[in-house]
Amino acid sequence: MIIHDISMPIYEGMPVYRGRAEKQPRHLLDKQMPEDSINETSIHMNLHTGTHLDTPRHMMETGWTMEDMPLHKLITRCKLFDLTWVEDAITREDLSGLPIQADDFVLLKTQNSLGRVGDADFVYIRQDAARYLAEKGIKGIGIDALGVERDQPGHPTHLAFLERDIIILEGLALKDVQPGDYLLIALPLPIRHAEGAPARAVLLEDLSLLS
Amino acid sequence: MIIHDISMPIYEGMPVYRGRAEKQPRHLLDKQMPEDSINETSIHMNLHTGTHLDTPRHMMETGWTMEDMPLHKLITRCKLFDLTWVEDAITREDLSGLPIQADDFVLLKTQNSLGRVGDADFVYIRQDAARYLAEKGIKGIGIDALGVERDQPGHPTHLAFLERDIIILEGLALKDVQPGDYLLIALPLPIRHAEGAPARAVLLEDLSLLS
Repeated sequence: MIIHDISMPIYEGMPVYRGRAEKQPRHLLDKQMPEDSINETSIHMNLHTGTHLDTPRHMMETGWTMEDMPLHKLITRCKLFDLTWVEDAITREDLSGLPIQADDFVLLKTQNSLGRVGDADFVYIRQDAARYLAEKGIKGIGIDALGVERDQPGHPTHLAFLERDIIILEGLALKDVQPGDYLLIALPLPIRHAEGAPARAVLLEDLSLLS
Repeated sequence: MIIHDISMPIYEGMPVYRGRAEKQPRHLLDKQMPEDSINETSIHMNLHTGTHLDTPRHMMETGWTMEDMPLHKLITRCKLFDLTWVEDAITREDLSGLPIQADDFVLLKTQNSLGRVGDADFVYIRQDAARYLAEKGIKGIGIDALGVERDQPGHPTHLAFLERDIIILEGLALKDVQPGDYLLIALPLPIRHAEGAPARAVLLEDLSLLS
């Protein structure tokens, strides 16, 4: 069984959303050997750190939260597309030639995976592209950006997905994986009432679980 | 595909190791609608909160840490056994009649899943039972306790497992699952240099991925 880990390592100094220092996780020592009989640490982290999922509550005052995340949408076949030629924003036109169908979980590999993930001008999904995917009826969208957009007023890209309960999986590390079909497993921490949660995500080449 | 979520929900007031108040996670508001244009929160948590994995570093000064956790040991067939009749500690004798073999990932359901998980006297794995499992050559041990032992001096149960690189998965929520064989998927947050990490764990009834 070949497992591709597509999660961002979590550490102080890691790439964070638009490079903002206040988004850095802090990893704190509670107990340390040999003074203590064990090593034990805590973490303080924004729930949108590294690889993570958003829920509608992130952008909608009464949207549902992490305890209602349907896990069957996160253990699923997915299609990974290479969009590393896109320089700025993914548009409807960029997607229109791709074989995207209803109920697909779509992963987009961009220049973010090649070093731009923590930049202020990371590659994002433009509103028209998000609406195109929503109209297609996809199940979920995954991208190697720490947000699907860059603080656009009104957050139209997020809303195009969240209003239709399309899963948003951000912060994927896709540098070492090739385009193709995979089994995606993305499991978030089950944090009650949360508008998002960090997740561990992997791709398996063997799709037999779903056949 | 039937998915059993065997993870503990994370929230302020959840059951924590031996009921210690300082182990409670804190879920903090960073941004809140309608004052802000989005909802965004952070969490402060001990890495041994809820469902989580230990690495050797937890009990050994130079043990390996979470970035070296082998994921193929965490997407694996497992055997779930019912030990809910044990009142205090699981002993070698309690396990000796069970069909446990080399390379098994063993999950133990106890009275902790029925309400004792946060108690000071939770059901734990006694040293002789841990040595028995280690001698069998199991791959991993999962239990519905927040620790495999209760602060025993020298941590002999932890060490029996960690010295042989046997995976320790703690804080499982097993109330609603029946004994049997499952596909276990337990994915921890990839926190660098960490002696443990919270994880989301599920059981699938379909074992076809492994056949």
